[in-house]
Amino acid sequence: MTERRTFLKVGAAAAMTAAAAATTTRLVAAEAAPAAQTAYGGEHAPVPLPFDAKSLKGISEKLIQSHWENNYTGAVKALNLVRARLSAAVQDANTPPYLYTGLKREQLARTGSVVLHELYFANLGGSAQAPASVRSAFAASFGSFDAWEAEFRKIGAGLGGGSGWAVLGYNRSLRVLENYSMTDHTTSPPNTTPILVMDMYEHAYQMDYGAAAAKYVDAFFTNIQWEAVARRLEARQA
Amino acid sequence: MTERRTFLKVGAAAAMTAAAAATTTRLVAAEAAPAAQTAYGGEHAPVPLPFDAKSLKGISEKLIQSHWENNYTGAVKALNLVRARLSAAVQDANTPPYLYTGLKREQLARTGSVVLHELYFANLGGSAQAPASVRSAFAASFGSFDAWEAEFRKIGAGLGGGSGWAVLGYNRSLRVLENYSMTDHTTSPPNTTPILVMDMYEHAYQMDYGAAAAKYVDAFFTNIQWEAVARRLEARQA
Amino acid sequence: MTERRTFLKVGAAAAMTAAAAATTTRLVAAEAAPAAQTAYGGEHAPVPLPFDAKSLKGISEKLIQSHWENNYTGAVKALNLVRARLSAAVQDANTPPYLYTGLKREQLARTGSVVLHELYFANLGGSAQAPASVRSAFAASFGSFDAWEAEFRKIGAGLGGGSGWAVLGYNRSLRVLENYSMTDHTTSPPNTTPILVMDMYEHAYQMDYGAAAAKYVDAFFTNIQWEAVARRLEARQA
Amino acid sequence: MTERRTFLKVGAAAAMTAAAAATTTRLVAAEAAPAAQTAYGGEHAPVPLPFDAKSLKGISEKLIQSHWENNYTGAVKALNLVRARLSAAVQDANTPPYLYTGLKREQLARTGSVVLHELYFANLGGSAQAPASVRSAFAASFGSFDAWEAEFRKIGAGLGGGSGWAVLGYNRSLRVLENYSMTDHTTSPPNTTPILVMDMYEHAYQMDYGAAAAKYVDAFFTNIQWEAVARRLEARQA
Repeated sequence: MTERRTFLKVGAAAAMTAAAAATTTRLVAAEAAPAAQTAYGGEHAPVPLPFDAKSLKGISEKLIQSHWENNYTGAVKALNLVRARLSAAVQDANTPPYLYTGLKREQLARTGSVVLHELYFANLGGSAQAPASVRSAFAASFGSFDAWEAEFRKIGAGLGGGSGWAVLGYNRSLRVLENYSMTDHTTSPPNTTPILVMDMYEHAYQMDYGAAAAKYVDAFFTNIQWEAVARRLEARQA
Repeated sequence: MTERRTFLKVGAAAAMTAAAAATTTRLVAAEAAPAAQTAYGGEHAPVPLPFDAKSLKGISEKLIQSHWENNYTGAVKALNLVRARLSAAVQDANTPPYLYTGLKREQLARTGSVVLHELYFANLGGSAQAPASVRSAFAASFGSFDAWEAEFRKIGAGLGGGSGWAVLGYNRSLRVLENYSMTDHTTSPPNTTPILVMDMYEHAYQMDYGAAAAKYVDAFFTNIQWEAVARRLEARQA
Repeated sequence: MTERRTFLKVGAAAAMTAAAAATTTRLVAAEAAPAAQTAYGGEHAPVPLPFDAKSLKGISEKLIQSHWENNYTGAVKALNLVRARLSAAVQDANTPPYLYTGLKREQLARTGSVVLHELYFANLGGSAQAPASVRSAFAASFGSFDAWEAEFRKIGAGLGGGSGWAVLGYNRSLRVLENYSMTDHTTSPPNTTPILVMDMYEHAYQMDYGAAAAKYVDAFFTNIQWEAVARRLEARQA
Repeated sequence: MTERRTFLKVGAAAAMTAAAAATTTRLVAAEAAPAAQTAYGGEHAPVPLPFDAKSLKGISEKLIQSHWENNYTGAVKALNLVRARLSAAVQDANTPPYLYTGLKREQLARTGSVVLHELYFANLGGSAQAPASVRSAFAASFGSFDAWEAEFRKIGAGLGGGSGWAVLGYNRSLRVLENYSMTDHTTSPPNTTPILVMDMYEHAYQMDYGAAAAKYVDAFFTNIQWEAVARRLEARQA
């Protein structure tokens, strides 16, 4: 355990040093998919923060570091353990289906937490300017960029004091960019590519802002990594 | 209402006639995405059954027709209505965020039902033979095709007597083919492309099998449209 | 397994014979609490149907028998097994808290299913006349008995084609009779005594009515055991 | 709004002054049920903190005051508004059942939050000694008082970093004292009287402890108002 923690901290430190390097390279690396895996097999390795933890405006180093270390890498650890349990349970004829399904729900929860946290960190650490390509894509679906932002913020406000995620996603079945409100890690629209992800669990802001969720949403908006958003938008039709 | 019902029935009848036509063309058409839409705008039109309702083995015409007409087109109608409400509520400053979020949850539920039902019908109506490309892809992730099938059936059994979906999906973030168990329309793993979808709500089998969910799962397996599965597999990396 | 099934069937048969006996005695017995138990210990024994399975109007013997045998006693069996697993897991230091919590969620789901099914069967098997005491209590909270019925039916309609429970409950904290809509076995208002419980899972009606949930709700209303409702109402303040 | 806030603060201040008064009287008053209400009618008034906000050990005045003012009274305000909407929607024939059900879900969520928060505050503010009557009742169900505490803490740990409630409840149908794990305000076992309630939403500890949920659970245990627990235990069989 101690060794693992050490390893994670070294990993994070490395990422922070890397933060000084070329931005594009770093971002691509941060979001690059891990090596292909087998179902409930293999170990998922935590992805380091793709920005300097000290660099965010209005989100403290202490908070983002705790968020990454406790909530995100905790979810990674849990996911790996759930997978190991699934691997054993699937071969055990004594596991009744409804208990197996209980484990599958944990898989869904941990998978959701890991994937959404990675997407969240990867769309943080940028400047506040959305490029024209993003603005026009949002406007095409929401009427205007501002109309998109207003709904996204409203979803955040609706989740404040509770738990969940505000997600702008591209629904590949319905071929539409929509904002979604999810109350936990297990809820998501099917067949949807997340474009912008905002964590609304209280660990994303309580340490800095207490119950003032709206101030966190303001801070989130000033740190959006729009290049990551633009890249996801481009890739969405694939 | 009567007119709409008539329209829907005509649509279904047309699809059934079409069922005699070239299979590949039809299937591609059935799964082809609708025209790009705007967020909570536009009307989603029901997609006709992509096979002759009389053609399934072990799933009666009466059941599949009721499933399509009542459950699926009911969800389409509900989705269109929820979108209209969202469109009004987003512009109404008197809608507090947590009530707006309540509407967003309905959007998530109806979107999930529409998308999953369309994927479900589109992977039914085929023969029982999985092509080699599918078998080897499943084996690569699950150890063997049979191991995949055993887990997928176990998930179905675990949901029997309740509600939900068994889904084989390709998680684009984790780059892995996995089976998932979802207890309602709002649960899904994020950033995941559904490859094979099995409805485990009781409307998918009670009318034919009563509580004998396992017999329905058998019937489902004899009707899988493996060409659709193969096509989704090929497109998953895009 | 065979033996157990036999036992259950004998139990059910006995209950049906008993159905000819004095109504009041039987009903009290049916709802009488089991012997006090220990946490996740002991075996919960299925409660026989408190009425003749042939006696319901508009709900077939086949359906109610399947509902009792497959869905309800299946939940009892599952609850007993989950409890045994909990009993082992709580003493196993190797069970991480979040996996333990997964088991607790199964406990919640099975407990909900067992308790709600027992309350449901116990408020079925009666005549259609609500006594004056019930009518006035409902009117005091809802404006009129008819207003109560209208909302209760609306909740049923809203759950049709999905899963869940419509429940009239007495909230002991808020001191109010209210109708609640629950989408699965794990949802309930806290500190609330159920007064009337209507199963809206599709196994409660699909076999008889297909997707026509409204017809089932009509049938449910003609079979309400109002004496049970009156008794629960009287006991609610305790 | 300003006026209302002022009123609430005065109410809280009054409660704090009252905290100096006789303990028993205060506690009974704090948990005393409000006047009987009508379904989704009437205004629920916030219950003041039943202890001096400065008096808790290891839970700061700032945190508990924010918890009460933002999370709890926010839920009260939301509940009153949802009830007003329900009152209008139930009479509006244009509200389709599934949209009405969406509102009912909000009612369930806000009711859960209000009731559980009131029970939580009412079982805080005490000394760390559980009386003999409580110890023996817990031991009767869990084997020993320590076994009860170990499971209750394990549930808390399993919810750490997420959201939910750890609840010791008396299930009136199963006649058993059990611990339950609930992941949001809408989940509860049916027909159950809460005996001890621990908030595991992050707003209950992040401000003081960051991600260190276990330290909060320690603090919670040193502040349990065991007299309230004993009183609920006594009343449970009623």
